[in-house]
Amino acid sequence: MNNILTQIENSKESNLSQLIDFLKFKSISTNSEFKSEIHNCANWLSENMTNAGLENVKQYSDYGNPLIYADWLHAGENKPTVLFYGHYDVQPVDPIELWDSPPFEPIIKNGKIYARGTADDKGQVFTHIKAIEAYLKVNGSLPINVKFIIEGEEESGGEAIEEFIHKHSDIISCDYVMISDTEWYDGGNVNNALPSICYSLRGIAVAEITLTGPNRDLHSGTYGGAIDNPINVLCWMISQLHDKYSRITIPHFYDDVLELTELERANIANLPFSNDDYKHDLQINEVNGEIGYSTIERATARPTLDVNGIYGGYIEKGHKSIIPSQASAKISMRMVPNQDYKKILELFKEHLQKLTPPTMKISIKGEQGGNPVITSLESKAIKACTEALKQSFGKDVVFMREGGSIPIVELFQSKLNAPAVMMGLGLSTDNIHSPNENFALENFYGGIRASALFLNEMAKD
Amino acid sequence: MNNILTQIENSKESNLSQLIDFLKFKSISTNSEFKSEIHNCANWLSENMTNAGLENVKQYSDYGNPLIYADWLHAGENKPTVLFYGHYDVQPVDPIELWDSPPFEPIIKNGKIYARGTADDKGQVFTHIKAIEAYLKVNGSLPINVKFIIEGEEESGGEAIEEFIHKHSDIISCDYVMISDTEWYDGGNVNNALPSICYSLRGIAVAEITLTGPNRDLHSGTYGGAIDNPINVLCWMISQLHDKYSRITIPHFYDDVLELTELERANIANLPFSNDDYKHDLQINEVNGEIGYSTIERATARPTLDVNGIYGGYIEKGHKSIIPSQASAKISMRMVPNQDYKKILELFKEHLQKLTPPTMKISIKGEQGGNPVITSLESKAIKACTEALKQSFGKDVVFMREGGSIPIVELFQSKLNAPAVMMGLGLSTDNIHSPNENFALENFYGGIRASALFLNEMAKD
Repeated sequence: MNNILTQIENSKESNLSQLIDFLKFKSISTNSEFKSEIHNCANWLSENMTNAGLENVKQYSDYGNPLIYADWLHAGENKPTVLFYGHYDVQPVDPIELWDSPPFEPIIKNGKIYARGTADDKGQVFTHIKAIEAYLKVNGSLPINVKFIIEGEEESGGEAIEEFIHKHSDIISCDYVMISDTEWYDGGNVNNALPSICYSLRGIAVAEITLTGPNRDLHSGTYGGAIDNPINVLCWMISQLHDKYSRITIPHFYDDVLELTELERANIANLPFSNDDYKHDLQINEVNGEIGYSTIERATARPTLDVNGIYGGYIEKGHKSIIPSQASAKISMRMVPNQDYKKILELFKEHLQKLTPPTMKISIKGEQGGNPVITSLESKAIKACTEALKQSFGKDVVFMREGGSIPIVELFQSKLNAPAVMMGLGLSTDNIHSPNENFALENFYGGIRASALFLNEMAKD
Repeated sequence: MNNILTQIENSKESNLSQLIDFLKFKSISTNSEFKSEIHNCANWLSENMTNAGLENVKQYSDYGNPLIYADWLHAGENKPTVLFYGHYDVQPVDPIELWDSPPFEPIIKNGKIYARGTADDKGQVFTHIKAIEAYLKVNGSLPINVKFIIEGEEESGGEAIEEFIHKHSDIISCDYVMISDTEWYDGGNVNNALPSICYSLRGIAVAEITLTGPNRDLHSGTYGGAIDNPINVLCWMISQLHDKYSRITIPHFYDDVLELTELERANIANLPFSNDDYKHDLQINEVNGEIGYSTIERATARPTLDVNGIYGGYIEKGHKSIIPSQASAKISMRMVPNQDYKKILELFKEHLQKLTPPTMKISIKGEQGGNPVITSLESKAIKACTEALKQSFGKDVVFMREGGSIPIVELFQSKLNAPAVMMGLGLSTDNIHSPNENFALENFYGGIRASALFLNEMAKD
């Protein structure tokens, strides 16, 4: 292992120089104008992966922008197979005038490399390729089996890889998925940033409800007081969806919720976090949420019900005195392991139908969602990743749940039956999706070391 | 009196012929293209009023479309002065293709005269002029003092007459105001229509409230569960504005409410009305409102609080998982005598501020309103009007409160200290503001008789 780490140390200049070449491609996926840049980038990356020693490098182009596949599968059947996932496409650059240097002319400044896509996700996914290259150069072989799938539409919907997984899950079958496309936890202060492993994501279920009262908008003078107003009723129904302790009142809503373990709660309690900083950032005087849980727990490990949009009646300037015929609300629920979004949507619909008074008709549409995911903290991949990060960065490692959803991770879990380890290497100051995106060189080099150490740890019995 | 009624009977043909001339003017006030028609109509009407024997006929044109003033003030100081109010402007005619005959070429069909403005309000206001003409022709004098103010902007905001009243309330000072611009009550079936006197209108108070939570729209995955969502909070606050008996919970809201008298409740109970027909018309399964009151009472004699519009978050097609920074609601309250809209707005604001949790900031804007009005059923004018309608039409007279507001009536009450009698002559089948507007000739002729009888009754001690 020491030889490999030495090899990585000696390749710093070359690895950085290759990253700069990778970053020069304007591989923006949200605008078809950049199609040739996407293809040039995919070709460059395929060649780089071949040069790294990966085998069977191939582009799947039938589903949209090329999906780059590669593998190295000679470690034997008794060794695990890890699928590395990442993306080579990048966000658009607008507002271009706010960039201090051109987004596709990478520059190094204060230990950071500035360019579009440097943290999201070119710099991060590249660490794994460079780790494997070092491993193969020194040892001639890898200690475990690896596969790669790197997509080119992550910033524009990711439909190509979804279709690919639905049709060819066998090609990328694996035991674990490794993703480096997130960032280090820092509790709002980058000086507190620590290497972070995200091991759980919330799911989501959305629906739009519409109440219909009278068959037409009515004069609120002529009818007001005598009939129910759909807006008032909708507000009442929404108010009934939480109790006074901010718990969701839908019967059986919490039945499948996996409670946080003592260890997880201790991990969360140890994270650097300040409710005061949090409130100051959002300019709110008080946080509020489910009784019995901390802010981080509420935002990552507990289910929610939020109205994302509401509309009804007259909403232009001024006033129009009507009782509207209809009122609507778009509602999302965040699911935690082991809730099932389809089951939750059924409970939600059933409850709302029961809440609807006979003065109203309810319709519910646009139901969709995705399930939560979780990888056991006891799993081999999490333990290996923890050890790798510790050794590479010499810092404590924190374990995070994320409150949002990443559909591809849920797809890996459901279609490949492969839990994911999200070894984020970014920092909160990376400005991803914003002008002056950057990536700390320390995290780039450390990421390559960590990835090599991870391979090594994964091979242990 | 009999001679006068005979004179009215003998003038039927001439009165109808004059009404037809009046209806030919395209006096549409909502489109400046018809300015000359407005002026021609005002001139024609002024001349007709002069011919009728009214004096001091004058047009006030400084405030917008001409306001036609006239009077006859020789009945003596011990006799009351009644101000007759009406309007000579009409609604636009669109959709023109749905008219069976051209809107400004009046035709008689099945006892009705069809033309734009025939019921609203040319035909109705004309009855009073023709009654006075008959009175003066037969008696050479009127039994009471009368004034007229007929405006030309009722369908387009009525700002001219408002400014005129604010500046020249002395010119139109009076003891009572008589308005014929409403219709007979029929409970949804024109065959049940009865001569109707409206003696009370609700007032209105409106305001728009906005809750602000976090300083920006947030990802509902990242923040959901940990902070209050302005939409959810707004819904909760709105739900708190009524109790489970549909009573408004704002402290002191009902303090000044004039309760219905036994007589009024008996009057309302006797009105032809079917909750089933009402529900069928609106296609609702149940009515709902303040406990202890009937549908008509709720819609006309009890105060209300309705959300007229609500908006917040993402309201376009599809779904966007945000916790919005803000959510807003446009709210109207209907006031009944003797509530004061300014006081109610203060109570409303105070209560909403108290309801606002420390997680939110509230702003309230756009407060405006108008007060309710009521004319005592015991007043001389109501009694005289009742007797006049009874004698003219040979039918029972019903006493109505209207749930809506008519700003001009509130202005007459507040600026002239003159209660109004609304002697409606229209029918629910008149299609006002719609194609094929019409006015029953029976109501036109009967209205002239009733107006003459009203003058006679008002003169009695």
